[in-house]
Amino acid sequence: MSNNSISNSQTPDNSTEAKRILTGIKPTGIPHLGNYVGAIRPAIESIQNSEHEAFFFLADYHGIIGCYDPAIIHESTKTIAATWIACGLDPERVTFYRQSDVPEIPELAWILNCSCAKGLMNRAHAYKASVDINMEKSDVDPDQGVTMGLFGYPVLMAADILMFNATHVPVGRDQVQHIEMARDIAGTFNHRYKTLFTLPSAVVDNDIPLLTGLDGRKMSKSYSNTIPLFGEPNPQVSPEKQMHKAIMKIVTNSQLPSEPKDPDDSAIFEIYKAFATPEEIADMRAQFAAGIGWGDAKTALFNKINDEIAPFRARYEELMNNPKELEEILQMGAEKARRHSRKQLDKTRRAIGIRPLAKLK
Amino acid sequence: MSNNSISNSQTPDNSTEAKRILTGIKPTGIPHLGNYVGAIRPAIESIQNSEHEAFFFLADYHGIIGCYDPAIIHESTKTIAATWIACGLDPERVTFYRQSDVPEIPELAWILNCSCAKGLMNRAHAYKASVDINMEKSDVDPDQGVTMGLFGYPVLMAADILMFNATHVPVGRDQVQHIEMARDIAGTFNHRYKTLFTLPSAVVDNDIPLLTGLDGRKMSKSYSNTIPLFGEPNPQVSPEKQMHKAIMKIVTNSQLPSEPKDPDDSAIFEIYKAFATPEEIADMRAQFAAGIGWGDAKTALFNKINDEIAPFRARYEELMNNPKELEEILQMGAEKARRHSRKQLDKTRRAIGIRPLAKLK
Repeated sequence: MSNNSISNSQTPDNSTEAKRILTGIKPTGIPHLGNYVGAIRPAIESIQNSEHEAFFFLADYHGIIGCYDPAIIHESTKTIAATWIACGLDPERVTFYRQSDVPEIPELAWILNCSCAKGLMNRAHAYKASVDINMEKSDVDPDQGVTMGLFGYPVLMAADILMFNATHVPVGRDQVQHIEMARDIAGTFNHRYKTLFTLPSAVVDNDIPLLTGLDGRKMSKSYSNTIPLFGEPNPQVSPEKQMHKAIMKIVTNSQLPSEPKDPDDSAIFEIYKAFATPEEIADMRAQFAAGIGWGDAKTALFNKINDEIAPFRARYEELMNNPKELEEILQMGAEKARRHSRKQLDKTRRAIGIRPLAKLK
Repeated sequence: MSNNSISNSQTPDNSTEAKRILTGIKPTGIPHLGNYVGAIRPAIESIQNSEHEAFFFLADYHGIIGCYDPAIIHESTKTIAATWIACGLDPERVTFYRQSDVPEIPELAWILNCSCAKGLMNRAHAYKASVDINMEKSDVDPDQGVTMGLFGYPVLMAADILMFNATHVPVGRDQVQHIEMARDIAGTFNHRYKTLFTLPSAVVDNDIPLLTGLDGRKMSKSYSNTIPLFGEPNPQVSPEKQMHKAIMKIVTNSQLPSEPKDPDDSAIFEIYKAFATPEEIADMRAQFAAGIGWGDAKTALFNKINDEIAPFRARYEELMNNPKELEEILQMGAEKARRHSRKQLDKTRRAIGIRPLAKLK
């Protein structure tokens, strides 16, 4: 895997220094296999194999921008926290917290608003995309449907990052602009008041696979073509059976068993690659050439995925049935996070002139 | 005095209900006599003569929008707190707090961002005025110099108001739009989630005088034509002498003593009216007609103002020399304010789906 650290020439080279990595997880919806392969597994692996400090947080104050259903916000927080821990995130090793448990973050966001040019937000891709859609319609205000939350969330994201002086923020390519914005805001504040904030670098990993969905398109909730990771809460069908059922639905062509098949044109092979060793992949490629039947290929795929996921399932179920344990984990994380955020906010407040008029007691 | 409560037809009529009045005070600069007559005195008088609940706060998180000098922010907070208390604000009667001591406010502001259409902010007078100035120049971005703080502060103001379910917000005419915005945001939230926020009404008092300055224009720091209330910190010239000196500088015409003078064309008479009883005003009008000399008129004006202000001066000096007492007053206020804000924020968080996954302990 190649991690490309994207940074401009002003960035200090942190390669020899200790890194502080920060990853935000938006709690909306139930995770699927694409999330596991594209986000959860690489994030957890990259931390396990490093000595660097790591902050992982459930970004529920970002979640409320696009989701107005309190039940979904609450349930997703639970599901996603349980998923990450079940998949091996070690809350003793990583500072794992819920954003809304750190009240210093929205307070810092307000302070950063005052060091953020509005023009910077005007140029945000997500905002501009909303405006473009409105502009295509007649008689519609370009800002129709845009809230101040949607418009200003890059500032909240800057607060998420700058609060902990994160040096490296792993993101998708579409999020690189947000890290540039955080750098810009930090630069303005540092120049205007005092050098308090580290300029973060975006880290884009181009080798993380985008998983193929049941229909051959990219696996995505919006295409309804996903394979569940731990499944929907459904006592009548076990999570394992839900996964099996979904895999059996993968769309194939009508080639018969024994006909040689093109692995590179098959969603089954595409997904298999994300779970298998190079030897296993080569072996499956040979089986495709030798004419493996679609049913057998699907069974092989299910077994391969299940070997990796099955050990996590018990822990997931245990956490979902014991929200108290989850809450305790999150509270421990909040406590660790606030040891940093209280100090950082205090320094920031003093820099802008907000401090007690006298020391009491 | 006539208080005009501005509200649209959707407002419940609160006339028979208990009012909760909220007043924000921006801590920038040293207060002058115009601030005293136009804001401090009427606000304190209106509270003293009523049974209603009152919240007064030092809006330091608004102060940082336009002032990047930490020393000014800090000193102004001290000066303005001392001024209001010296002028008779009773911190036992009123909940008197510093905005930045209530961390629930910026947190609520973020939540309200997500229930505030960006279009609402596009139409804010203060923002539009900034854009208009930029548009007059060529080659300048319309948003030049506009920060996200300037653009989004009506949402912070909505949080200031809605946090305490204030029913009445005394404002100048230029601020009425902000109260309408707070109503709009509250309405969206209430409709979308749960009815948590009282729709506030703007209260505009048309009878509060705009004080005339030394040069006959409106008294304003930006015209450098002010009479100091308690004076600049200057040990060589007493506050009383500073006030006397300023009054002696009031611009007059060249009419000689004994010439009849037009009181309605005189800044001296204009300011005198703001401090005198109707009988005293009638008497001074007669003295003008009888040709009082400008020096004598100024002396009469000084004596009149000094009669009212002198008793406050000792208390002001005492507080300025004892920041610990001021801080204790503000901490007491913060404690009272947070008894409300903690509950209100908790209700708001629950309404949007943010709550612990389980009860611990």
